[in-house]
Amino acid sequence: MSKHKWVYGFGAGNTEGNKDQKNMLGGKGANLAEMSALNLPVPPGFTITTEACIDYGKQDGKLNSEVREQVLQAITNIEKDSGKKFGDNNNPLLFSVRSGARVSMPGMMDTVLNLGMNDESVTGIAGKTDNPRFAWDSYRRFIQMFANVVMGLEIEKLEGALDTMKESKGVKEDTELTASDLQELVTIYKKIILEDSGTSFPTDPQEQLWQSIGAVFQSWKNPRAQKYRELNGFDHDWGTAVNVQSMVFGNMGDDCATGVCFTRDPSTGDRRFFGEYLINAQGEDVVAGIRTPQPINNDSKNESNKNLQTLEEVMPKLFGELEDIYKKLEQHYRDMQDIEFTIEQDTLYILQTRSGKRTTAAALKMAVDMVEEKLLTRDEALLRINPEDLNQLLHPRFDPKAPKEVITSGLPASPGAVSGEIVFTSDQAVELTEKGHAVILVRQETSPDDIAGMDAAKGILTARGGMTSHAAVVARGMGKSCVAGCTALSISEKNKTMIVDGTTFGEGDLISLDGATGEVLKGSIPSIPAKITENFKTYMEWADSTRRLKIRANADNPKDSQVAIEFGAQGIGLCRTEHMFFAPERIMAVRQMIFATSVEERQKALEIIRPFQIEDFVGIFKEMDGLPVNIRLLDPPLHEFLPHSTEDKQALAKSLKLDLKVVEDRAATLFEFNPMLGHRGCRLGVTYPEIYRLQAQAIAEAAAISTKNGIKVYPEIMIPLVGIDRELEIIRKEVFNAVEEVLTQQKQKVAYKIGTMIELPRAAITADQIAPHADFFSFGTNDLTQTTFGLSRDDAGKFLPQYVGDRLLPVDPFVSIDQDGVGFLIERATQLGRKVNPKMHVGICGEHGGEPKSIEFCHKMGLDYVSCSPFRVPIARLAAAQAVLKEK
Amino acid sequence: MSKHKWVYGFGAGNTEGNKDQKNMLGGKGANLAEMSALNLPVPPGFTITTEACIDYGKQDGKLNSEVREQVLQAITNIEKDSGKKFGDNNNPLLFSVRSGARVSMPGMMDTVLNLGMNDESVTGIAGKTDNPRFAWDSYRRFIQMFANVVMGLEIEKLEGALDTMKESKGVKEDTELTASDLQELVTIYKKIILEDSGTSFPTDPQEQLWQSIGAVFQSWKNPRAQKYRELNGFDHDWGTAVNVQSMVFGNMGDDCATGVCFTRDPSTGDRRFFGEYLINAQGEDVVAGIRTPQPINNDSKNESNKNLQTLEEVMPKLFGELEDIYKKLEQHYRDMQDIEFTIEQDTLYILQTRSGKRTTAAALKMAVDMVEEKLLTRDEALLRINPEDLNQLLHPRFDPKAPKEVITSGLPASPGAVSGEIVFTSDQAVELTEKGHAVILVRQETSPDDIAGMDAAKGILTARGGMTSHAAVVARGMGKSCVAGCTALSISEKNKTMIVDGTTFGEGDLISLDGATGEVLKGSIPSIPAKITENFKTYMEWADSTRRLKIRANADNPKDSQVAIEFGAQGIGLCRTEHMFFAPERIMAVRQMIFATSVEERQKALEIIRPFQIEDFVGIFKEMDGLPVNIRLLDPPLHEFLPHSTEDKQALAKSLKLDLKVVEDRAATLFEFNPMLGHRGCRLGVTYPEIYRLQAQAIAEAAAISTKNGIKVYPEIMIPLVGIDRELEIIRKEVFNAVEEVLTQQKQKVAYKIGTMIELPRAAITADQIAPHADFFSFGTNDLTQTTFGLSRDDAGKFLPQYVGDRLLPVDPFVSIDQDGVGFLIERATQLGRKVNPKMHVGICGEHGGEPKSIEFCHKMGLDYVSCSPFRVPIARLAAAQAVLKEK
Repeated sequence: MSKHKWVYGFGAGNTEGNKDQKNMLGGKGANLAEMSALNLPVPPGFTITTEACIDYGKQDGKLNSEVREQVLQAITNIEKDSGKKFGDNNNPLLFSVRSGARVSMPGMMDTVLNLGMNDESVTGIAGKTDNPRFAWDSYRRFIQMFANVVMGLEIEKLEGALDTMKESKGVKEDTELTASDLQELVTIYKKIILEDSGTSFPTDPQEQLWQSIGAVFQSWKNPRAQKYRELNGFDHDWGTAVNVQSMVFGNMGDDCATGVCFTRDPSTGDRRFFGEYLINAQGEDVVAGIRTPQPINNDSKNESNKNLQTLEEVMPKLFGELEDIYKKLEQHYRDMQDIEFTIEQDTLYILQTRSGKRTTAAALKMAVDMVEEKLLTRDEALLRINPEDLNQLLHPRFDPKAPKEVITSGLPASPGAVSGEIVFTSDQAVELTEKGHAVILVRQETSPDDIAGMDAAKGILTARGGMTSHAAVVARGMGKSCVAGCTALSISEKNKTMIVDGTTFGEGDLISLDGATGEVLKGSIPSIPAKITENFKTYMEWADSTRRLKIRANADNPKDSQVAIEFGAQGIGLCRTEHMFFAPERIMAVRQMIFATSVEERQKALEIIRPFQIEDFVGIFKEMDGLPVNIRLLDPPLHEFLPHSTEDKQALAKSLKLDLKVVEDRAATLFEFNPMLGHRGCRLGVTYPEIYRLQAQAIAEAAAISTKNGIKVYPEIMIPLVGIDRELEIIRKEVFNAVEEVLTQQKQKVAYKIGTMIELPRAAITADQIAPHADFFSFGTNDLTQTTFGLSRDDAGKFLPQYVGDRLLPVDPFVSIDQDGVGFLIERATQLGRKVNPKMHVGICGEHGGEPKSIEFCHKMGLDYVSCSPFRVPIARLAAAQAVLKEK
Repeated sequence: MSKHKWVYGFGAGNTEGNKDQKNMLGGKGANLAEMSALNLPVPPGFTITTEACIDYGKQDGKLNSEVREQVLQAITNIEKDSGKKFGDNNNPLLFSVRSGARVSMPGMMDTVLNLGMNDESVTGIAGKTDNPRFAWDSYRRFIQMFANVVMGLEIEKLEGALDTMKESKGVKEDTELTASDLQELVTIYKKIILEDSGTSFPTDPQEQLWQSIGAVFQSWKNPRAQKYRELNGFDHDWGTAVNVQSMVFGNMGDDCATGVCFTRDPSTGDRRFFGEYLINAQGEDVVAGIRTPQPINNDSKNESNKNLQTLEEVMPKLFGELEDIYKKLEQHYRDMQDIEFTIEQDTLYILQTRSGKRTTAAALKMAVDMVEEKLLTRDEALLRINPEDLNQLLHPRFDPKAPKEVITSGLPASPGAVSGEIVFTSDQAVELTEKGHAVILVRQETSPDDIAGMDAAKGILTARGGMTSHAAVVARGMGKSCVAGCTALSISEKNKTMIVDGTTFGEGDLISLDGATGEVLKGSIPSIPAKITENFKTYMEWADSTRRLKIRANADNPKDSQVAIEFGAQGIGLCRTEHMFFAPERIMAVRQMIFATSVEERQKALEIIRPFQIEDFVGIFKEMDGLPVNIRLLDPPLHEFLPHSTEDKQALAKSLKLDLKVVEDRAATLFEFNPMLGHRGCRLGVTYPEIYRLQAQAIAEAAAISTKNGIKVYPEIMIPLVGIDRELEIIRKEVFNAVEEVLTQQKQKVAYKIGTMIELPRAAITADQIAPHADFFSFGTNDLTQTTFGLSRDDAGKFLPQYVGDRLLPVDPFVSIDQDGVGFLIERATQLGRKVNPKMHVGICGEHGGEPKSIEFCHKMGLDYVSCSPFRVPIARLAAAQAVLKEK
């Protein structure tokens, strides 16, 4: 058997991979290979495949001998090309070791730089570079990183030693320490390592390499990486690749630099080259946000860096080279690139390129611009944006008329206008959010340990870091509001205080962030709906002309209907009537109805509700002029309308002039062990036909009034929870008669439909029996998921997160349609229903109607429409278009 | 278009139907035609079809003109044959008008006799028969019946007039009234009718006929008929036929008689001709039980009639004729016949034959005897008994050793040994039974209005009536214990007292009935299990050699296991382990486990349960030596093990040394909105693997101990509520490891299986994904029905009865498998499961496992076994055999 290929070289005349091999080489590795093939100045190296990571897991944390062999072979090749030698004392080849999964997981995986140094080679490097300080600084950085990442030492212990050293030398900055200071520090570091771990720091470069590769593979499984994958729905089985690359140094002196740049503005999408850099620094210094980075050009200037020198000014020739390269890369990848570069003694190296993270506004602008630039086709552009990301654009911004008190401002790292209580720890953010609070996570700077807290918080505020800091990058990815690098803030996470201009804010104090302007504001500020941009409109028009599925909204009042229309809804897919019964002036009549002891009494109570219902429908029909409105008749069990506390029951008894005991007895009679499976939906319609009759009459009367007013109405009357054909047959007749009677009386003609929700497995299974009585089917996927799984959404919280976390389920079935189970029923019901009734109109109105994967599934199943919450309508429009394009 | 045939003649040379046309002619009509064709002495007549009844309903209670025309044509034919004329004053043709549905509904439909009489013809008949008393008695009977049945008068009003008349004449018996008394009574009757109804009694015979036919059709829909159909699962759409037959009179004098006979003893099945008759009476006199009927022969004598003259003695020749006829009929029908006859002036007429109702013991004996007599094949015999009826044989009888105080005794009308509280009304019987009381319905005599009460009561006791009285016939049909005609009792339904020998029993007093001996006993008497007869064994052996399905029992303790084995179970199909956790000495450990705050604490609590679990399983394995035992791991949500009242919670807190608040908080945390869809079944196994591990270990340890003791054990470990393949995959591994560890330790080999319940729609839909991890599937049809319908069995009581009553569902889906919905899932899961795993063993363990129609369905689906409660095992064995025979 020929040997499996575990290692792919790049550069040094031996580039074996390309950009399309991300699954095997990871994103970073594939792009390093691609750039090498483009003859860009990439330091040579090699990538160990994700397969090796999976194998490493299977072997219980051992690298197999083939991997080792192929690694050593790849090193030999680089040695030949560079003339340096791995483990040589005088002219050592040093490596960086970095993770690289198939998709970018910023900061989630660990990195080791300067690998290959030891007590001998540090002297060799000092001699060869004539820069002992650089050599010793590189060495102590390596030891520090290796001890932390590979050996698991707490970083604070070594940083503490560094701080002590600085204090004892009376200096403030690391750069002020001399070569001998650093040499002394190395000795202290080694001592700490030995004491703490019981083993010496390994001086054999090969040993260092194997341990580092192992540590990267191991880090694939660390909790924060797992959490990140869970948040993003990434598979735990992908594994990460390891990239081992010849070191180049941005920290050898003032002719060295390191930086990050974007080919367009990742925040606005503007077509301007944009980036940050630091002279005499290593890459992590830029990302970590410890020093304020300098702008690479004038376009990159902002409030906090506008007085710093640009790369264009300092190193004009190299900046010119970088410009050429960014243009080449953007043309080649046909997408905005996020590029890492290092300048070592006036030579430019590209260490990474990838499609850059961006705000959705930026993504939209880029997509529209790139179509204009003919870089992309419309179809390609439509596939460029994750529909979920549109969320960022669709949410409110601060009311410009509201009074605002700006406390301070920072970098506009990720747009969004949010208000919330200050919290200082990730845990607190999670805890309070679970309790229903809106919180703003305030941190000196964020780290990967903060992922859960960032996900929970409404927004993130940091004192340190630039536009490419951890906080900024992650927040943009999450679509969270973020203000970063707000240097005026003095934050003490320990004391739980944030001090600005002498004012102290504590935990629980309300603040607001405007991530689009960078402003931090006092108190909670009212917000107004998002304003829709021209780019958005253009993009959405492309989506609309591409998609086949119609998109409706779930709305049960005129206001929501209006929002839905603004967001492009083509009708209402679910108007829940029960919400109309809860309003204070109606609930008493509903309760009167519940306590009625005869049909007559019940009808009398219902009459009180009638005018309200008519008014509701008239309002909705007006907003939806010319569009279908699907109205679901009463669904919840009657006990949901009764009060729970004894106090409220007493009040009810008093107002209904009943004994408390009567109220309590009726409540006890209505009690259900499993309300979800109880006396609700059409079962109410069967036992209390007068309720549905009233609703049908109110719909018909509203339709007649609207028609007289010149409004075009297309009501669809939906009977919920049908499981048996006869239920629908009986109720349809009742509803039909009620509607016809009103329309005849009012002398109006209205094109209406009567249909049913398919939300019980039995309804889907026997859809051919139900179809003769239905003009339409609408899948109620919430209930259908509950019954198919035998899983109450209200109760699943105790175990469903574990199920998703442990991959018992790939995704929460209440978020994305379970295609194997629930999907089977949807397919069956659609096919059987259409077989019996070829005109059957079929849609979906559960929460899934706004979720892209579910929408793609609905498209494949041949449904006519999906219906979702008004804010998700644009997401659905794009997802529906993508479904068409993916099918091509 | 040729005319539809609505009317079928019989006798008078024009017999048009036969016994196989029961659906159209009703049972009575089909058999009258059949007997006519056999040249038996059947008075000529005609049958109006059930289709006419349905048509009558559709025409809103009108007979269509074709029906009228064909009726008149049939009458003309009979007139020609008999020489009498319908409506003639001198020699009138009189008719009986009776209902006759496709299955016998004793007493449910109304009858009119002597139709065609009026003020003129009564004189003609008096003259022609030379018997004015007979003529007037017939006339007043006709008026009374017609007024009640057709005109809707309360019978009491006319009976009151009769009683007044008897009083005023100073006589006790009806028969003592003279012709002129009766003539006077007729005048009074007519006056009452006019006063009460505002219309005169119709004197036009045709008018009488149309009204009577209409009344029979109408009576199909009366509440008691509907109730009877619902109780028996008969279709409301069948309709009834009407039989119009020339009158013959058993009440013309002492050369007249009327009676009912059975070709074999309907109570024991003994091969003896058996019946009762009355001289000078009409048919209803025998059935109503007002006069004590005489035995037709010595074989028919019992305690209450042994001193009365037999028909054999009084009319030997006619008795001989009757004997010939009964033999002919039994041979012809190959079944025990229930025959009604009338003797008019020394001429024998047969008015009806039908397969007689019988006790199950009798049915069994007849079936076995008839196979011996070569009247039936074994297969035919196996189809003769409704499996449900075996219930009668399988229930306990009084402990012979228990002290007994016999109050009195009556006729052993229907076997069964029961104890309960006395109730005097049907309503009371229903009401108390619903509250969980056991009641005995004590009535002067029962009427069709008592059906619901008889169904609710444990047993029925009447003071009047014979072995063929309403109470006796209906009770036998229902399998209820009944002691009838207990003449020593003085019952006042009004005062709610039953007095016997000076002792008064009131409502709520406990009595016992032995329906096999006719004894009425004081107090509640302990009972012992049914004794199995030779006939039963023989019959069951035939069933066993015929069936393909194996029958297992649901049992979770050694005692039930023993009963199951005695009833022929071939293993345990469902051993619920949660019942084992509820015993007082264990529940505290379970609760300790629930309040554990760590895995270790939980494990410690589980250790307390371990020895109990092992002991349980050892006991069950012993009973089930050599047979499979399917054990379901813990299924209910944990909160089911917690106390509900504050008092009990306090006690629990004290014994666990916890704060009450801790107990309440934990209970609140465990609270579920929909426990049926909550954190239960394998979801517990996923989140608390130590629970299932303990159970698996206990099973393995018990299996090892049993194996060492020479017991052959075949444990099947069943994981409940699986909906996702990974759930089973993970738990299977856990269980497998636990079992293997124990068996290795104990050095025992045990052939065990690990499988799952299929009780969620998703499990059935994705059975091919689940099958690789399962050695068996067992359908939990209770939960599968709940989830497929989205219907909680605990809550459905509020509307499901209406659903069944209004025919939204043909039958309660928790009683008989819903074949369209749930059945589809069973079929799919079985097919997919076997496709992946051809060795897959498939059974059913829901309540449906003991229900004959469901068993037939399971047979058709190719399941391997059904499992049901121990007492239903014989029912299942027979049903499984019948499934095979019906397939042939």
